[in-house]
Amino acid sequence: MQKCYLGIDIGGMSVKFGLFDENINLIEKWYVETNTNNNGKYILYEIAEEIKAKQKEYEIIAIGAGVPGPVDSKGIVKECVNIGWGETDVKVELESMTGIKTTVLNDANAAALGENSEKYNSMVFVTIGTGVGGGIVFDGKVLTGFGGAAGEIGHITVNPAESEKCTCGKSGCLEQYSSATAIKKYADKLIADGTETMLKENFTVKDIFEGVEKGDALCKMVVRRASVYLGMALSNIACTINPEVFLIGGGVSRAGDTLLNPVKEYFKKFAFPEVKDTPIVIAEIGNDAGMYGAAKAAKRLI
Amino acid sequence: MQKCYLGIDIGGMSVKFGLFDENINLIEKWYVETNTNNNGKYILYEIAEEIKAKQKEYEIIAIGAGVPGPVDSKGIVKECVNIGWGETDVKVELESMTGIKTTVLNDANAAALGENSEKYNSMVFVTIGTGVGGGIVFDGKVLTGFGGAAGEIGHITVNPAESEKCTCGKSGCLEQYSSATAIKKYADKLIADGTETMLKENFTVKDIFEGVEKGDALCKMVVRRASVYLGMALSNIACTINPEVFLIGGGVSRAGDTLLNPVKEYFKKFAFPEVKDTPIVIAEIGNDAGMYGAAKAAKRLI
Repeated sequence: MQKCYLGIDIGGMSVKFGLFDENINLIEKWYVETNTNNNGKYILYEIAEEIKAKQKEYEIIAIGAGVPGPVDSKGIVKECVNIGWGETDVKVELESMTGIKTTVLNDANAAALGENSEKYNSMVFVTIGTGVGGGIVFDGKVLTGFGGAAGEIGHITVNPAESEKCTCGKSGCLEQYSSATAIKKYADKLIADGTETMLKENFTVKDIFEGVEKGDALCKMVVRRASVYLGMALSNIACTINPEVFLIGGGVSRAGDTLLNPVKEYFKKFAFPEVKDTPIVIAEIGNDAGMYGAAKAAKRLI
Repeated sequence: MQKCYLGIDIGGMSVKFGLFDENINLIEKWYVETNTNNNGKYILYEIAEEIKAKQKEYEIIAIGAGVPGPVDSKGIVKECVNIGWGETDVKVELESMTGIKTTVLNDANAAALGENSEKYNSMVFVTIGTGVGGGIVFDGKVLTGFGGAAGEIGHITVNPAESEKCTCGKSGCLEQYSSATAIKKYADKLIADGTETMLKENFTVKDIFEGVEKGDALCKMVVRRASVYLGMALSNIACTINPEVFLIGGGVSRAGDTLLNPVKEYFKKFAFPEVKDTPIVIAEIGNDAGMYGAAKAAKRLI
């Protein structure tokens, strides 16, 4: 049987599986819907069932699993709000059900590792979707931080005067301005306030970025606000750790230059002179980055 | 002759020298005034003269020099505004004048390394004096960043609406609110605006912190403003790299709890829940940390 590594990316909507050869080339990928019933208590059991079925065809040497929450240095998941988990020892549970060595990492950290991180001396990966997540890679290794919370850049305070609460419990987080959720919400608010726009009912975030291209003033205002705060947050990361590059991923990154151009403009405005030329580019691997990174982490177990 | 390492801390006012044994115990220390004439062109020559004199008593194995500006990965100093230097190859100049192996690092990075950095998995050192500087140490190694600008936390943008310029050329930097210079300037402004205070003419930053202890409303306002921005900047660093500890050094740190208490209050307010208990403590070594760290860096050359 072919030896391989399994990378798993556990998300709020689906669990993605990727089987990789010993050089981390993708052999096969598939996904199942995330079963969030009963606070997600069936998820790991269902993952184990998928693995057992694949073991009939492949020899799985090690498993890497990306999870949507902070992971401490022992691999224990503190909490995953999206899928209903409280403290969960994913490593021990998966190992006992499958008999295969397993490593667990935060999903944004896994995606950072999956994004050709070896190419760079240091990189900061930012994923912009429902929320804003991040992962920092130095010399090909993910920075997890002392308590597993490194790279939580969606919770950088960018507006100390904000009164509305973020999902994390505090106020003024980057995620409240630059996530897909926040972009949509701000457009809704401006429309409710009577601002004119070409956006039709049931518009999407994609429609907002297309509206910018078409010169819609409301869409421009919405993307500008998201970009000011993202540009400022990245500039602050730049003078703190001075990475070689910023990679932007997640659903919103599909907007390409329509997002990047204003982000770069504000980044330069707020950046310390020595770091203002740090490249900000769109991530390459995209949706599959999490399972690539999880598989890379699995390979390191061996 | 006794073998030893030389740690040098080049500052705007004085150049400090420390001779250390092979276990980095201090043998002897002294200082000379910094000669800033002619854009500081005599400084390295005068340092070499000091070294030559000491070589009559000691065998200096290696030199570490901390400089007040960014240092790139080749050890080239980009610019040191305080002492008048443009691009300067401190390593090559000192080596050619003394014949001793030399390493060059940023002064705040040197101080970070000097502050018992080995005790911690990761730490962020913040030095608050004329400006606000910083150094980040992971596993006993200074993070210099891709271009040598890591740890420049004085230039984190904390107020995007600021119109006044920082010395770095941009606006709204932490240094503009939380440095000794900024603290003094804000007190001056409030007095000029007619705010009542117990502060006498020619008051110092020390007097401002003493004024807080005595309940002076103006002093409280001034220290509160410095603390809000410092607390917010540290909270943003915490969710980015999640260090084990923050160490606060520099002249202003002598205020002790009068500074720390409000900084901790705002840190908790702005911090992502997972990192809000990160300790913030006063640095131990203080004034000599720069030469200790420079000597440690020198030892690593051997």
